[in-house]
Parts: sequence; structure tokens; C-alpha cells
Amino acid sequence: MGIVVPFDDARDPAESLRPLLEIVAEDMEAINRIILDKAMSNVELIPELAHHLIDSGGKRLRPMLAIVSSKLAGYQGNGHIRTASAIEFMHTATLLHDDVVDESDARRGKKTARLIWGNQASVLVGDFLLGQAFRMLVDVGSLPVLKILSNAAAVIAEGEVMQLAAAKNTATTEDEYLAIINAKTAALFSAAAEVGAAISNRPTDEQAALRSYGKNLGIAFQLVDDALDYSGDSRQLGKSVGDDFREGKITLPLILSFRRGTEEERSFWRRVIVEGDIKDGDLEHAQGLMKRHKAIEATLERARSYGGIAHDALAIFRDCKEKKAMLDVIAFCVNRAH
Amino acid sequence: MGIVVPFDDARDPAESLRPLLEIVAEDMEAINRIILDKAMSNVELIPELAHHLIDSGGKRLRPMLAIVSSKLAGYQGNGHIRTASAIEFMHTATLLHDDVVDESDARRGKKTARLIWGNQASVLVGDFLLGQAFRMLVDVGSLPVLKILSNAAAVIAEGEVMQLAAAKNTATTEDEYLAIINAKTAALFSAAAEVGAAISNRPTDEQAALRSYGKNLGIAFQLVDDALDYSGDSRQLGKSVGDDFREGKITLPLILSFRRGTEEERSFWRRVIVEGDIKDGDLEHAQGLMKRHKAIEATLERARSYGGIAHDALAIFRDCKEKKAMLDVIAFCVNRAH
Repeated sequence: MGIVVPFDDARDPAESLRPLLEIVAEDMEAINRIILDKAMSNVELIPELAHHLIDSGGKRLRPMLAIVSSKLAGYQGNGHIRTASAIEFMHTATLLHDDVVDESDARRGKKTARLIWGNQASVLVGDFLLGQAFRMLVDVGSLPVLKILSNAAAVIAEGEVMQLAAAKNTATTEDEYLAIINAKTAALFSAAAEVGAAISNRPTDEQAALRSYGKNLGIAFQLVDDALDYSGDSRQLGKSVGDDFREGKITLPLILSFRRGTEEERSFWRRVIVEGDIKDGDLEHAQGLMKRHKAIEATLERARSYGGIAHDALAIFRDCKEKKAMLDVIAFCVNRAH
Repeated sequence: MGIVVPFDDARDPAESLRPLLEIVAEDMEAINRIILDKAMSNVELIPELAHHLIDSGGKRLRPMLAIVSSKLAGYQGNGHIRTASAIEFMHTATLLHDDVVDESDARRGKKTARLIWGNQASVLVGDFLLGQAFRMLVDVGSLPVLKILSNAAAVIAEGEVMQLAAAKNTATTEDEYLAIINAKTAALFSAAAEVGAAISNRPTDEQAALRSYGKNLGIAFQLVDDALDYSGDSRQLGKSVGDDFREGKITLPLILSFRRGTEEERSFWRRVIVEGDIKDGDLEHAQGLMKRHKAIEATLERARSYGGIAHDALAIFRDCKEKKAMLDVIAFCVNRAH
């Protein structure tokens, strides 16, 4: 029996996000207030730089996952608000450090903080936000939640180092690549979904189910991101198509094209990725090779498959609007490529 | 009545550290094992880079403070070992990020990690070590300890940003400078001393006393460091005399020389610090100006004064070998300038 992937491809992806947005709306307002408050500091540079990224309209998918999973688990307290805020801070800190490491110039359609305030400030404000995240989590006072998120913090950094070590290595296998995105992206999705059960003291099977949902959703999300970087619309992406290509970043579309390609094509990949010798028309040539080898389609197919695992992970929960919204999030993550 | 500063200047500073070293010796062996274990990762680059700094023979003053303060507070468990290891990881993470921010080439007599593995790896491995630190603290499971150290993590980063914002600003006042070192250095000394009382559930007055001891010791430590950077012995420092000067770093010896100097001297400071236009002989000229204005002596005098406050902070504790060792640490920190 194949994996059932009940995604209605014809639907507008934004439509799939609506049930989630409705469920979390009130809590997200509280979260936005906490985020503004905790990004404050007497050191002016901190709120200035932090706001640049905070105000730039990220989707806030991770804190929303923490909120909806808490509701799914029947949580009655208010600790989920600060937990979700801390998760967004952890994510923001990672983005600041990522942009330094990748030497990125644009994010969410704006100049990166490092381009405006420098790498040094980006590193240090990232550290500050991570410190604030842990402060908030200590305030919440749940050791199981602290365990999940301190674990995620270490694993994310591990994934980033893995990615750095694999940089420009065209011999990276699909498995190695999966290990990287499992750590650098899926770990925080997974933690965000899992804290809902942990903060509500739900049984371990529910915690494991939410962890699995978040992890597979995160993998699907990252794979679609990777596909969009070669096939998306720049305005919609908030960054330029071909950023990964220009940075020589190894992602699944490239791994598949390299493996499925001829020796001549591999020479091309080595020139542009390993040597960084990129000429006019090379991006278009790369996109052509990906088309020839159906690398984008295969990447999206993989994403759908992980989406299917995320879907099945929620099967143990009774039907309710929270579960429905979480299933729709999978559709959103997978279908935004269309 | 003046502050009593009972430091025996004639004594070898290393001698002052001996009582502490004897008290913590056994626990430090356990800590060294945990540090090696927790710096492990399947991602080879992580232990490789982490060991470069860990093996380079730092004094491990901060974990030693956590151990001796736990013993002073009569702690009977073994959570202090992992707490102290986490503190050393937090410190190591800070050093890795500091060297990136300061573009430093040498630390503890060795090339900096960023010079060998690059800024990117240093940022990310720093993040990993901070994540591991919180993981260890969650394992210990004391929310009061987590509160103290998550607070310290945010404050340290805040101090680093403050320092960055004050960079090359010769108009920085002594008060502003104190606020910087209070955050970037004294916060972790303070936290290390305070956790001893927190982990032992001691009354708040003892916790406050240890916090004050650590904070003032940390300020004294940093001021002596600043003085040594202009007056020390390169081999003993593990870095070159004049590093702060060449990096245009604002420290107390410079602040005092600038304020006490003539208009002509201030022009000199602006040229070398603000414009970074350093010629042969400028370091020697700077040292001459510091001598003329007794800036090094005044810096060390301030350090002694903070050392005195640290000394008085411990007055509420009964006499015991732990208290004696902690008082001797003050002498070590202050007298290592001689």
C-alpha cells in the first residue's frame, strides 16, 4: 500500500493555512507583544537589529505549531505563549547566524541585517536572542519543555556545522543531505510540535507522534524551499531565484541532477559549485539540467512523501479542528511550490 | 574608614590560587571528563575545533568558582559538576564568538580557531557549545540554576553588543565602560559564584553575597586584563601586548589617558583608535602617555578597590577553607599584574 497523500493540489496554498491562522490568532497577538517586549534592551542596537528581522513578516510557522499542538493536547495554562515566543527567538537567532555564515545579502525581500549592521552585530544579537529564549523558557518552568528545546538548540547548530563541512561537496549523498536538514530545519519544527504534548504532560506516544509530525513536516518544508530556490518566483520567495546556486550550496535538486547527469554535466556542476566559476547563463543551464533529469519534480515528490509520514503521525489523535488545521499545514508546506 | 584590601603583594600570584586548586582538584577531573564528552559529535569539525580551545590551557577559573561556592554552601549532591562544566562551555562559546567579532589572531598563545577553521565554523561551533551547556543544565534540573545562567547568557551578549557599539568611541566614559565589563565579563563570574548557593537552596542573603563576590571579582579580573594588555609580558599573556591598542578597543587605561591628556594627546588617540592609523612607535608612545598619566596604576587601583568589595561580600560566611580560598582568588586576580 502506498502512502496516502490527500493534498488537494488545486487549492490555493494560502487557503490551507487559514484554519491554523484562525485557531492561533488570539495567542499570536500575545506572542507578538512578548516578542516586541523581549527584543527590547537598553543597548539600542539590539532592538534595532532584531526588529529589522522580526518586522519583516516571517510566517511564524514554528510558534504557530507550538500553539496548535498545545491546543490539540488540551493544554489549559498560558505557558505555551512564552514557549512559542522562545521558539521564534531561537529561529530568529539561527537566521541571523545563518546569513553571516552564508554571506547572504537578502532575506524576506529585505537586505540582511549583516549587510546593514555588519556580521559582528548579527552574531552578537543572535546570541542575545538565544539567551532571551532560554530566559523565557525558564520562566515557563517546565523541565520537559526545556529539555526538548535545549536539545533542539544543540542539534540545529550541529546541522549547520554539518552543512558547512559539506559545502561545495558535489559528492554529498541524498542520505547525508537528509541528515543535514533533519538537524538544521526539522529539529525545530519537531520540537515546536512536541512541546504541545510535553507542556500538557500528555503520554509519551502522543509526544512521539507530534515529534514525528513536526520532523517530517520540517523535512518537507525544507525540500520545497530547496526546489523553490531553482524554480520559484523571486518576489514570492523574498530572495532571488538561484541564491543557493550562487552560494554553491548543496541541496537535493543539485544532488539529484549531479547523480543522474553525464560526466560532462558533472564537470559543469564542479566548475560552478566547487570552483565557484559562474558565467552568464549558467543558472539557466543548471535549471535546464534539473528539468532534463526531473530533479525538481523528484525533490517535490520526496517532500510529498515526508508530508505523508507527517500526516500518518497524527492518526492517533481524535478528529478535531486542531488536527484538521495541522493536516492542512502539511498541504500548505508542500503545495506552496505551485 | 577605607576599604581593607589585605593582599600580600609580595606573594607569587600562582601561590594565591593553590588553596582553590586543592579544594576543587577532584571535581575538576570529573569536569574535564564531562567537557571532553560533551564536546563530542559525529560532526568531526565540532570536537576538532572545540578541542583546539579546550586543550589550550585556560585557567578554568569560572567552573572552579562554581565548585568552591557549592562547597562553601554545603552542597551535598553532584549537580555542581555538570553546572560547572556548562559554565565553562558558555565561556568557551563566548570566546569563539569574541574572536570572530574582534578579528583576533591569537588566544592563549595559539592561533585562534577562526584563523584555522574560519569565522563561519567558529560561530556555529560556539552555538553548539551554548546548546550543549543548556542541555547539561537541564539535566541537572535546578530551575534556580537555569534562571541564573540563562540570565547570564543574555546579559553577556548584551555586554558584547554594548562593547561593539562603543567601539572606537574615545568619548566612552568610565561609567559606560564599567557597564560593559559588568555585562560581558562580570556576569558569568557572578553567576558561577551564585549557583553554589542556588543549587544548595541557601537563603537569599547568601545567594546575594556570592553574586556580589563574583561580580566584583569579575570586574577586577577584567580591569587587570586591560592593564596587562598595555603592560604585561607577551608570553605570560598568551597574546601580544598591544592587542587592544591595535584593535582600537576602548579599555580603562585608554579612557583615563584620553581624559587626563592634553588636546594634542587626544588628537593622537583619535588618530590611532578612531582612524586606526597606527605607525611604528605608536604603541610605545601610547604606553608613554599611560605612564605619564598613571593610567595603568589607576586601573589597577580600581581593580583592587573592586577586589575589596568582593572581599567584604564574603563576610557573612563563617571562616572555612573554602572562604579562605575564595579570598585568595581575589589576590590572584589582582596581583597577577605584577
